[in-house]
This record gives sequence, structure tokens and C-alpha cells, in this order.
Amino acid sequence: MIIEILATGDEIRTGAAIDSNSAHIAQVLEQAGLEAIRHTCVGDDMDIMVSIIKEISGRADIAIVTGGLGPTSDDITAEAAAKAKGVELVLNRSALHVVENFFKTRKRTMSPSNKKQAMLPKGAESLNNPVGSAPGFVLKIDRCWFFFVPGVPFEMRRMLSDEVLPRIEKLYGRTDELSLVKTISTFGLTESATGELLDGLSAEYPEITTGFRSKFPEIQVKLYIRGTDDKVLGKILEKASQWVLGKLGENIFSMNGRSMEAVVGGLLAEKQATLAVAESCTGGLISHMLTNVPGSSGYFHFSGVTYSNEAKTKVLGVSNEVLQRYGAVHPETVKQMAQGVKRVAGTTYGLATSGIAGPDGGTDEKPVGTLCIGVATPHDVKGFRFFFPFNTRSMNKKLFAMKALDLLRRELRG
Amino acid sequence: MIIEILATGDEIRTGAAIDSNSAHIAQVLEQAGLEAIRHTCVGDDMDIMVSIIKEISGRADIAIVTGGLGPTSDDITAEAAAKAKGVELVLNRSALHVVENFFKTRKRTMSPSNKKQAMLPKGAESLNNPVGSAPGFVLKIDRCWFFFVPGVPFEMRRMLSDEVLPRIEKLYGRTDELSLVKTISTFGLTESATGELLDGLSAEYPEITTGFRSKFPEIQVKLYIRGTDDKVLGKILEKASQWVLGKLGENIFSMNGRSMEAVVGGLLAEKQATLAVAESCTGGLISHMLTNVPGSSGYFHFSGVTYSNEAKTKVLGVSNEVLQRYGAVHPETVKQMAQGVKRVAGTTYGLATSGIAGPDGGTDEKPVGTLCIGVATPHDVKGFRFFFPFNTRSMNKKLFAMKALDLLRRELRG
Repeated sequence: MIIEILATGDEIRTGAAIDSNSAHIAQVLEQAGLEAIRHTCVGDDMDIMVSIIKEISGRADIAIVTGGLGPTSDDITAEAAAKAKGVELVLNRSALHVVENFFKTRKRTMSPSNKKQAMLPKGAESLNNPVGSAPGFVLKIDRCWFFFVPGVPFEMRRMLSDEVLPRIEKLYGRTDELSLVKTISTFGLTESATGELLDGLSAEYPEITTGFRSKFPEIQVKLYIRGTDDKVLGKILEKASQWVLGKLGENIFSMNGRSMEAVVGGLLAEKQATLAVAESCTGGLISHMLTNVPGSSGYFHFSGVTYSNEAKTKVLGVSNEVLQRYGAVHPETVKQMAQGVKRVAGTTYGLATSGIAGPDGGTDEKPVGTLCIGVATPHDVKGFRFFFPFNTRSMNKKLFAMKALDLLRRELRG
Repeated sequence: MIIEILATGDEIRTGAAIDSNSAHIAQVLEQAGLEAIRHTCVGDDMDIMVSIIKEISGRADIAIVTGGLGPTSDDITAEAAAKAKGVELVLNRSALHVVENFFKTRKRTMSPSNKKQAMLPKGAESLNNPVGSAPGFVLKIDRCWFFFVPGVPFEMRRMLSDEVLPRIEKLYGRTDELSLVKTISTFGLTESATGELLDGLSAEYPEITTGFRSKFPEIQVKLYIRGTDDKVLGKILEKASQWVLGKLGENIFSMNGRSMEAVVGGLLAEKQATLAVAESCTGGLISHMLTNVPGSSGYFHFSGVTYSNEAKTKVLGVSNEVLQRYGAVHPETVKQMAQGVKRVAGTTYGLATSGIAGPDGGTDEKPVGTLCIGVATPHDVKGFRFFFPFNTRSMNKKLFAMKALDLLRRELRG
């Protein structure tokens, strides 16, 4: 069975927006044992849209198409589908019901432009949209079943799981082929160093396909396996994962796709430990990452984003003497910051960062990329100094935050 | 001239990674007056890769291909290109120089697997990579010039501007056609409401193409215009922008693509005002956003991420009485937080958030999505309460942070 994904919209074609929908659809299909072999993106141009739909209709069995179902003038997907099949647009009663229902349940008035969303190609079956005003639809053109869904990510996601997948299963039966994937997250090695350490993997486990994904600043190693027996596949994948663990050791922070902040949070919760953070160069990013984890209020109590020296002395109790003698970016200063924030918040651990994220503020002695990290534990406090040769502010903030969390992770693992 | 973009890699095809490269390439091409009409993505499969390269070689004049040039076993792009053209892979001296130079300038030892990166299709011209170990290359297949660059975003970006674009201009001459785009960023209206308010735009300005981009939680209105006379296009675009401003008013926070945090930062700097933030439910995101702006240390002094009530009283001086009487999520509490953080940091403005980001912690009285914001100005302090009907933690954090910054923006504009 040949499956393709088509994303439509000038905002994606021109690069004004990044197409995250196709990745999500591909991932959901993978989990269902279905492989999308090609993604395409075209703009809101009627001729091009009609021609790509015709092209796909001759070579694929299933196509999932996103975008262009909204109420505005640049939404032309339904019309393009009708033209590709050579039929008219007609008012679809059940699509109209979806639109009307959306406004009724939200006690909002439906505007005339929304009625356009119920005009579908003749012969199309409408798809319910429980979370938005745009109904989707299914239409067979040539050999291919096309599933049209909106481009708004959370509407598309909901309709994919509730409407599209069940219909694909009905059409082709549940597939017996399974696809398992294991995501191993590492931090601290380059992609090529990671690849070389894992050089013997394919000889040892020929059933496994390996992929490397650079998700700055982490490198993910993905192990893929396909087949029909869940248990057999799981066992091979587990063995191969252990082999990878043996090669990469402490550079691995997660064997199940969890983020660094979730791993650190899990370790804190496990130890019934609590954490406070003092951030200078990371500017709140560590706190933001930690609080992205549901339940983080159980162990994360306080963070002081102390951008000014005054805040460092006043809130964290860093001594003026240390600031004058060493400056804001120094292992001694971050040690005081880590201890200070731990004391102020009454936690068992304190983590502190100070550095030069750039683009300005670098000196010969402390160039952009300099990072100091302080880790206060129940027993002692440590200060570190690092240098990273990047020079964009956003990369530095990400790398600095990750490095600080990684040091804390290693400390917590003991 | 027909231009296409091809992204390769199983991590993108399977959706494990989102393809942000194609969007960047399309955007850079647009700015140069060049239109990519189609993006395609395929996985690391030799047959499929060879066939898509052949397909593109027959219909496009220029193709930019990303990914698969690294040192690991899943990097097969050079081989696929050689097969599509029907030539051998040979050691390319100048590509080898790029690889060797990378390791030499970084004082690192080159590993054997990196030598593979200098094996290019016979007849290919290598492209310099000043920031990574993988050289790119140019190869003409059939009617199409293919530019192959690495998939690592910052390497690809650098090579696109330094190596690829100058060669395209050499091949086809600078294009006379210009493409101008204006990005108008709004917050507070839905996409369909925005679209309806702008309903008469295309009648008034038929030269303008309008696009709507939902970049949660903001809605961007994009105005596109193409033509040859820079000045004429600029004037029409400016007039149309003013027309849009007249319709959307204060819901617009930026007319030049700047982020909310950059706009707020600009207003603070203009007023020589300073800011401190007290974050509860937003967990550091407001601080992270503000400090993403270079130069933010000039006006942003301190943020207290006070997740625990203890931190709210101890660091910000919120009274126990208020906390007991109203709870942590209440306009009175955030007023005290905003005043407290302003006092502690000695700034002219204080901004505070407290709310329920979910997924847990909601009650009947204060369900998930409840948000309180406090704004302390030089003269007074205001407390607000809002409710947003989303229920994912990450969406709520984004929306809450944006709402708080937007209130501050409106306050600063007076």
C-alpha cells in the first residue's frame, strides 16, 4: 500500500511557516504500522494543486492532505479536489451540520464566510471536526483515497485519530506489520563521534535500522525494527539498546525519548529532593524547561532570574566582594548563587548559571560562549567553567541550559 | 525557472523530526525573488531516492537537496545522486580539503568515517562548508542543476547563502522580479475573525495576496506582492498595511515581524523603563522570551519564578493573609506579586502571573485555563483575571505568557 502526505498552503511553500503537520501524520502512521513514503508541499495555486492531486491519484493508494479548508479566500483545497476529480462543489448537509454545531456549542454566531466550509466536491463524505469549524472530507480520485483535513495542528491531530485512521483500517484492514522504534537521547558527543562509537551495530543487529537525529543540543539515536511478531521485535530492540548503552554510557540521558528536564525531574522526585535555580545567562530557560513537566511543582520551588548584579546580591545574597573580585561570570560567583538560591528557597539542591550568551558582552578573557555552572547539593557546592564555540544567542541559551541540567542529572545519579 | 526543494532522511519521512530546512530555503529564495514551487521529502532508501532525483531532474531547472551527507551509514545522498546520473563516486580533492580543514582548524583528529564525506559523484563540483565537516556539491542531471547541502540546519543555512545562492545567480542572472512581503502580527482575535475583518482587502488592493498564519498564540497576516519596481511595490504594500492597521487596530502588536517580547523590550528601552517579573504558572517562559532579545539586560533586571507559596511570601513579600484569603490564583495575589517583584528589584514596572496551566490542579472555581495577571506601573497596580478554554500545558504556558506581555505592551503604549 502506497501512502503519501500532501501539505498545502503558501505560508508553508514560501517558508513563512514550518510544516509540522506532515511530521505528525507520518509519526502516527508509523505507530499504526503504516509507512508514508513521500511528503509533498505545494502552495495555494489552483493549477498546481489540481495537478499534484492528479499526480498522487495515479500512484498512491492513500493520501492525507492538510490545509486550505478554512473560511478565508486563500482556502481553495476543496475546489482543487473537485477539479481534479472533474466534479462540482455542492453544499454537503453533514458538513454544514459540523460547521453549525461548532458555533452552536460555543454560543457564537456563525458568519457567512463559514458556510463556504460546507461546500465539498460532489460524492465526498464529510469528516467530523469536533474541535474546529472546518469539516474534512474523503474522496476517491482514480486509484487513491484522499483524506482532506484542516491545517490547524490541533484540529488535524484530533481528526487524524478519530476520523482518518479508523477509515484507513476499514478500507485496508489492520496491518499485520509492526514498526517499533526506540529513541535513545544523548548529550555531550558530536553526531560523528556517536556514529563511530556505534559502528558495529549493524553487523551485530542486522534487523535494526539506525538513524541519527541532531535535535540541538542533543543527539538522538533512533533504532527502528519492522516485522510481525511484537515480542520478538521487542526483544531484539531491547538487546540492541543495551548494546548502544554499553558504547555510549553516561552520555545517554534517556532510553525512552524523555526530555532532559523530565529525567532530572524524575530523579528529584525519586529522591524526594527539591530544587531551586538561579539563572543569569540562561534567562529563565531552565525554569521554563523544568516547569514544562506536569507535576514539576512537587520538586521545583523557585527560580531567580538574576540578570542584574543588584538582583544577585539582594535576592541571592551573593557577596559584593566576590562580584568585584571575580565578576558575574566565574565559578566562585555561581557557587554563591547556587548556595544562595538553595538557602532562600529552602530546597535540597541549588543550580546556578552565569555566562556570556552573546551576541555582545564578550571579552578576551571571557568570550561569548563562556559558561559557569554552580551545583549546590545537600553536602557541598561545586563550581564549573566551560567554553562552547557557538555564537548565536538562542543556541547558547539552549546549550547552557542543557549543560546545567546534565550536570545536575549526573550529580543526582551519584 | 522551476525550482524545487528536496529533503531527505528517514527521521523526517517517519516524522521523528520536523523538516525546518525546507521552510528556511523557501524563505531565502523568496527574498531573492525566486519561487520554490514544490517541496518533497523522502527517506533514506536508495531506490526511492534515485527515482525522485530522476523525476525532479526532468521537470525542474534548480533543485536544492538537504540531508544525507554525513559520515554515518544512513547517509546515502551522494551515492543516490551518482546513480541517478549514472556515474561513479570518486574521491573529490577539494571536498577532501573541506573535511580536512574542518578538523585542522578545530585541532581535532579526523576519523576514517569522515573521509567518506569526500566521495562525490564524478563531475560534481564540491561546495565549501565553513562550519561543519560535510562538504556539499553541485551536479547537473538532465535539465536540472542540483545543489546538495547537509541537513544540519546551521551548516545548511551558511552554505545556502555563501555557496548556493551566488551560483544560482551566476547561472540564471539576478532575477528582475521582486517579491516583497509584510508580516503583521496580531494577538487576541481568531483566524476567522481576522479574515472577516480584512474581507475587503483584495477588492481594495488586487495586487496583494493575503495569507494567514496561525503561529499559536499569535495570528500573522502576511501581505505579498510581486513585480519589478521596488518603490511602486513598497508604496502599495505600505498603503495596504495601513488599511489592515485601520481594521485590526490594537490587536496588532507588530508591523515588521518582530516578536511580542522584542516589541515590549523596545517600548521599555524607549521609555528608559526597567522591568521585573514574578512568574508562577508561566514558569520562567516570560523571562526566557524577554532574554531572547539581545540587549535585554538593559531593561530586564530580575524575575522570580515563585512556584511555591513559600517563595511568594519570602522572595516577593506576598502576605500570608492574602494567600490564605484568596489563594495563589487571584487578582489580589498577583497585584502583590507584581508590586513585590518591582520593589525587590527596584524597577519601574513589575509583571506577575499566577494561574492553572494544567493538566492537573484545576477546580470548579478555578479550572485549568484560569489566569491572573498583575501589572505594577510607576503609579499604580492592576489585577486581571482571564479564562482560556485550552487544556494542554504547553499551549497554556505560551498563551499565558503572551497575554501578560500584551497587557504590559498596552500599558506601556498608554
